Amino acid sequence: MQDSGDSTYVSNHTSDAVRATRFTNLPSISVESDEDLHAIITTTDNSNLLSSVRRRVQISTEKVQTGSLNVLSAKYESLDYDTCENHLLLDEERKKGYKFIVQKNIARWFTFLLIGMITALIACVIDISIEELSTIKYASLSKSVDKYVTQGRLHIPYALWTLYNVIPVLIGSILVAYVEPIAAGSGIPQVKCYLNGVKIPRVVRIKTLFVKSVGVICSVVGGLAGGKEGPMIHSGAVVAAGISQGKSSTFKKDFNIFRYFREDHEKRDFVSGGAAAGVSAAFGAPVGGVLFSLEEGTSFWNQSLTWKTFFASVVSTFTLNIVLSAYHGVPGNLSYPGLLNLGKFESFSYEIYELPIFLVMGAMGGLFGALWNHINYKITVFRMRYIRPRWMKVFEACIVATMTATAGFLMMFLIDNCKSSGVNPTKYPTQLYCPDGQYNALASIWFQTPEASVRSLFHDPPDTHNALSLTAFVITYFFLAAWTFGLASSNGLFIPTLLTGAAWGRLVSIGMHYVFPQTLVFPGKYALIGAAAQLGGVVRMTISLTVIIMETTGNITFALPLIITLIAAKWTGDFFNEGIYDTLIQLSGVPLLPWEPPPLVHNIYASEVMSHPVVTLKCVENVGHIVELLRLTTYNGFPVTEVTTYGRIRGLILRSQLIVILQKKIFNETSDDWENITASLFRNEYPRYPTIEQLSISEEEKTYSVDLRPFMNPSPYTVLHSSSLPRMFRLFRALGLRHLPIVNDSNEVIGMVTRKDLARYRVWRHQGRMGVEELLISKEL
Amino acid sequence: MQDSGDSTYVSNHTSDAVRATRFTNLPSISVESDEDLHAIITTTDNSNLLSSVRRRVQISTEKVQTGSLNVLSAKYESLDYDTCENHLLLDEERKKGYKFIVQKNIARWFTFLLIGMITALIACVIDISIEELSTIKYASLSKSVDKYVTQGRLHIPYALWTLYNVIPVLIGSILVAYVEPIAAGSGIPQVKCYLNGVKIPRVVRIKTLFVKSVGVICSVVGGLAGGKEGPMIHSGAVVAAGISQGKSSTFKKDFNIFRYFREDHEKRDFVSGGAAAGVSAAFGAPVGGVLFSLEEGTSFWNQSLTWKTFFASVVSTFTLNIVLSAYHGVPGNLSYPGLLNLGKFESFSYEIYELPIFLVMGAMGGLFGALWNHINYKITVFRMRYIRPRWMKVFEACIVATMTATAGFLMMFLIDNCKSSGVNPTKYPTQLYCPDGQYNALASIWFQTPEASVRSLFHDPPDTHNALSLTAFVITYFFLAAWTFGLASSNGLFIPTLLTGAAWGRLVSIGMHYVFPQTLVFPGKYALIGAAAQLGGVVRMTISLTVIIMETTGNITFALPLIITLIAAKWTGDFFNEGIYDTLIQLSGVPLLPWEPPPLVHNIYASEVMSHPVVTLKCVENVGHIVELLRLTTYNGFPVTEVTTYGRIRGLILRSQLIVILQKKIFNETSDDWENITASLFRNEYPRYPTIEQLSISEEEKTYSVDLRPFMNPSPYTVLHSSSLPRMFRLFRALGLRHLPIVNDSNEVIGMVTRKDLARYRVWRHQGRMGVEELLISKEL
Repeated sequence: MQDSGDSTYVSNHTSDAVRATRFTNLPSISVESDEDLHAIITTTDNSNLLSSVRRRVQISTEKVQTGSLNVLSAKYESLDYDTCENHLLLDEERKKGYKFIVQKNIARWFTFLLIGMITALIACVIDISIEELSTIKYASLSKSVDKYVTQGRLHIPYALWTLYNVIPVLIGSILVAYVEPIAAGSGIPQVKCYLNGVKIPRVVRIKTLFVKSVGVICSVVGGLAGGKEGPMIHSGAVVAAGISQGKSSTFKKDFNIFRYFREDHEKRDFVSGGAAAGVSAAFGAPVGGVLFSLEEGTSFWNQSLTWKTFFASVVSTFTLNIVLSAYHGVPGNLSYPGLLNLGKFESFSYEIYELPIFLVMGAMGGLFGALWNHINYKITVFRMRYIRPRWMKVFEACIVATMTATAGFLMMFLIDNCKSSGVNPTKYPTQLYCPDGQYNALASIWFQTPEASVRSLFHDPPDTHNALSLTAFVITYFFLAAWTFGLASSNGLFIPTLLTGAAWGRLVSIGMHYVFPQTLVFPGKYALIGAAAQLGGVVRMTISLTVIIMETTGNITFALPLIITLIAAKWTGDFFNEGIYDTLIQLSGVPLLPWEPPPLVHNIYASEVMSHPVVTLKCVENVGHIVELLRLTTYNGFPVTEVTTYGRIRGLILRSQLIVILQKKIFNETSDDWENITASLFRNEYPRYPTIEQLSISEEEKTYSVDLRPFMNPSPYTVLHSSSLPRMFRLFRALGLRHLPIVNDSNEVIGMVTRKDLARYRVWRHQGRMGVEELLISKEL
Repeated sequence: MQDSGDSTYVSNHTSDAVRATRFTNLPSISVESDEDLHAIITTTDNSNLLSSVRRRVQISTEKVQTGSLNVLSAKYESLDYDTCENHLLLDEERKKGYKFIVQKNIARWFTFLLIGMITALIACVIDISIEELSTIKYASLSKSVDKYVTQGRLHIPYALWTLYNVIPVLIGSILVAYVEPIAAGSGIPQVKCYLNGVKIPRVVRIKTLFVKSVGVICSVVGGLAGGKEGPMIHSGAVVAAGISQGKSSTFKKDFNIFRYFREDHEKRDFVSGGAAAGVSAAFGAPVGGVLFSLEEGTSFWNQSLTWKTFFASVVSTFTLNIVLSAYHGVPGNLSYPGLLNLGKFESFSYEIYELPIFLVMGAMGGLFGALWNHINYKITVFRMRYIRPRWMKVFEACIVATMTATAGFLMMFLIDNCKSSGVNPTKYPTQLYCPDGQYNALASIWFQTPEASVRSLFHDPPDTHNALSLTAFVITYFFLAAWTFGLASSNGLFIPTLLTGAAWGRLVSIGMHYVFPQTLVFPGKYALIGAAAQLGGVVRMTISLTVIIMETTGNITFALPLIITLIAAKWTGDFFNEGIYDTLIQLSGVPLLPWEPPPLVHNIYASEVMSHPVVTLKCVENVGHIVELLRLTTYNGFPVTEVTTYGRIRGLILRSQLIVILQKKIFNETSDDWENITASLFRNEYPRYPTIEQLSISEEEKTYSVDLRPFMNPSPYTVLHSSSLPRMFRLFRALGLRHLPIVNDSNEVIGMVTRKDLARYRVWRHQGRMGVEELLISKEL
């Protein structure tokens, strides 16, 4: 009875809603180089495939609409996180023994120490440069305004302001647009993808670090609505990747150290430490940094890695603190734990009746955040379509720089908001139209770095800012920030988002005071909640964001209001769209694996998901055949099967390993020097292997054979064709796999599942409804 | 060439040191019910086994020496963390759809809210009871001492003290020894094992919670050198397990809610939230709580679970804060975030030259901690051997209570340490032999709860305590605490350890002042570092401990000194022995899976590790055969193979599922009511299934057959016999498996690997040397 039931289950399980989405997006079947594939398949005797398989080729060549969020790009590859336990590795372990393990571990600690220190030093350089240049800029502007306002020639300071904005932004955007485009933006989406296990080209190179560092100085000094925190996280990741490898491909310099760290597994672990050190330097939040790298990157919780990551984070905060304290003339005082110092919130507490208010503010943040994300998404799509030449990108950045100056200038000029000096002693109070002894409160927000403005909004006494100027500021900055993020310049969105949120949070406190005049409303508290809500609504981070804000404000007891706010912001925002980082990642088609498999896909089986026919190699394989295979396909992993026609799986070999074998000419006929064939041979080439076209294999060599067994991974994880999608997903996610061979009942390879095959099933949530959609995979993106 | 090399690899890899340990501990092969097994095997046609397999039966009946750390007990079972995706589950999902998923998720949030609140309320009851009773006790003692000291009749207060100690301890230890022995100690090792995936009988029952709560009040009021923090963590875990199930087996009450949470996976997730809420309530450390439950329990980092755990932690701190603030007469002040309130360390900072001192203190803590662990281990082994009857356990607890009073009394009596009143205004300053206007500083440490004493040592001004009294106190308390931990009473070791450490930390500051008289040494800082070092040396926790101390002291900037201290303490301690929790776990033979596979075991293969012959079932199986199998074996999972003789794997079925099938009589011949056979049928019996002996199956029914396919897990994770130990280990650890069937080249089941087979390979580190040892598995433990 149950036997016949099986097929019913398969066809019935899909509820109608799911069905619709599951099949509307099916890619048109268009086969590229199908004949070539076929030729290969017949030579490898590998064609006994399951009859029940439904799709054949998953890569579509259909034209993809720009801005689609439902397409995965075919170009991204996964990291090899799963260790290849081949004979060479066993050999190495046997020879080197425990001593080597201990030595490697000490080297690892030392590397994490270096990562923490160097990340912090870079943060210091960036911070001090911004501080010095901004001081010059705003002092000169403030003086100029006060000088020319009496003469009625305000166009002069306006022109000056525009110039001061455009010049640095021009430099920064030229660097980004022409030298290293991947350095644009905050870098957090890229780091997130890398930690998720996706190779993003050039993301952890030294050149990227350089452009990012100079770029972020330029954009912040240029007054763009952006911050330096996101780029710091990216910098930390690059530092980690660079140091741990003990060589620089850019500078062609090999220090001959840390050779044993030259593999994807080790490198990714270091990068997660570097990202944490970056967060720690940016916000003075070592615990938040660890949680950030866990939340964004980790699949398998690894105690010893987390402990080392924490160490790097603490070292990073400490180093930054030492240097910045000395720079600010109070060496040893250690009061500068992070770049973003929001000031201590030690004194204030909250009442229980305020919790519902925080909840509502959280929901507002979610709403505003979703709107912001939508606007930014639309702008980004517009850019992808029309702003494609480099000069246009630079030009756009300059326009935004001009607009920023203009908006600020108009606000100061039109809105009268005078406060008596001394109440809020900013560094350069600007008088503008105010009577003597007073200063323009709006100018004080505009004539300083955004960080300082956030601090002002958090700590300025009540009545510093009036409702009109705050409203104008919120609206202006909201749109400016949405326009700025995604420009060809290196800047993050934490600070502008916090600033927008802090401003409307203060507005809420003014409203509260209006409704309940008798209660004492401390505006800084509402500014903090507003800032958290807005940021939560935009980025949708959860635990790490809470802890980062707690650490930045130095207030542990404020956990409950923050968590309530952030939960409300996340839920409200998720009702409308995804967080901005996820939207950007989806736009670029990166096959990110989410935390959990989508719900209700237990009825999708490996046989439906897998790529096939699969191209396999024999244990002892002809060299010519390998060369041909590598030339004709783009696959990065090949199952190795036994010599018989059955094709039972014996192992898995990577393209990079085959390349090295061919390059070093380790053929059965020529090579008998097994002493020198070690695992380090393979590490030396890491991470930039030559392509197959770069190798010269003579015709005679093509008749040779190569024994793949010492090199292949002899026991790759495999699953049966009847395994469900969630089971494959968990295996992939938890173990960081790159290739998962699918076998039939007799252990013969019949297909291959890679990251894209799993990432393409995605849950969508829209206005309360849910479903699972199947994404297109495209080569166009 | 490589083909013949394979066997060479296997035999050559093991370095001599490893070899020795690998084979000296091999269990003597003694087969229990071998004939029965054989009978089963022949009927199931399942005997084509690999010839290369080396061992046959892994359970030894050899007499195990008490106190051995190299034995795993055969009695512990794993949790079923891997979801069984059988047809019933798919059916349920299809019927209920997304709405059910959303509903389940809301119920989950609500449950975490309840867990946080109820854990905190229990903490409040415990705390207030202890506070009230201790106040009465110590006020009366202090008065009595001051009354009788002038009359020279100090034996009266001594007798009184002894009585006040012995009576509560007697009550507590009778409860623990006679009612629920698992409630002894801190409960952290048990919770750790549970979170690691091991079923510890009775550990999350309501009776345990009751005994634990009353027991901890008794032991703290009784003046034992123990704290209430560990038990709070255990309480949180029990609360979580209780609430999430919506029923109580103890009270035979089913609330008919949360039925869908009745499985091991959900329950374990809730327990990890409960443990975090417990930490949060105990220390006012919500972030530390989350990190504790991650560090102790998680294998796969799950963002949404972590976020909910954090929520429960924050709610827990908040609730505790509200209630305790109200109790202390400052409602709404929210200044009591945790039970352990070490006072704020806001004002002080550290100098860079102090870091090496902290490093040395960390190493000292590691040394003292290792010594403490060794002493406690010896005492525990002594107890296991000789203090077995319940009355002796109660008697021992009373002796310790008496000794505590005696030690305190002697110290006050013999050591003269008078301070003028007003410098340190304790609640009831005891004058003793001091002149008028002064009080005895030692009495002030003894005549209060240990928490209050820790606070005194952290915050008392310099010169409050002299070197002699501190030395005497450290030595006395060190040994008292080692004797107390492991008694038949509910108490933890955090507080006594912190107290010992704080005392020697203060000693260090006195020494520093003596060596460098010109520098200003703030003793509280050294007390804190000493406390952290001692605690780190005893428990060897890393990141969670750092964060807990940071949160408890309210000082985020103190991260670097703490992390340096704890790293030094851990490394020094690990040189000598394991942390106390791990030692206790090893003593009880729980097969805990560590974070990572031991190094250098890539040459141990599945075929060596697995249990075999394996007992399998056919897809459609005879009822009588199933009954027979369940009676004769103790296995908890059976691979299901196809009907042919080959035995290709088709699925995996659990003993509990078979029991339910037999109980509900779901036989092919009788049952056609498939509408009512749903997944909930299986959940209803959870977690206490009847034994096979409790079921009555008639002789006629035994001739019936049952189709296992709708119930079994149709695609269990399997690996080839040639997989290495680390690969199986990672699969097990990351996915929380209970059974891992081992297949041969044709996908036929040839063995089974369970937790014990992997946990028995353990790395040992001793005085700088490392190796891998193979543990014995025994039924005796």
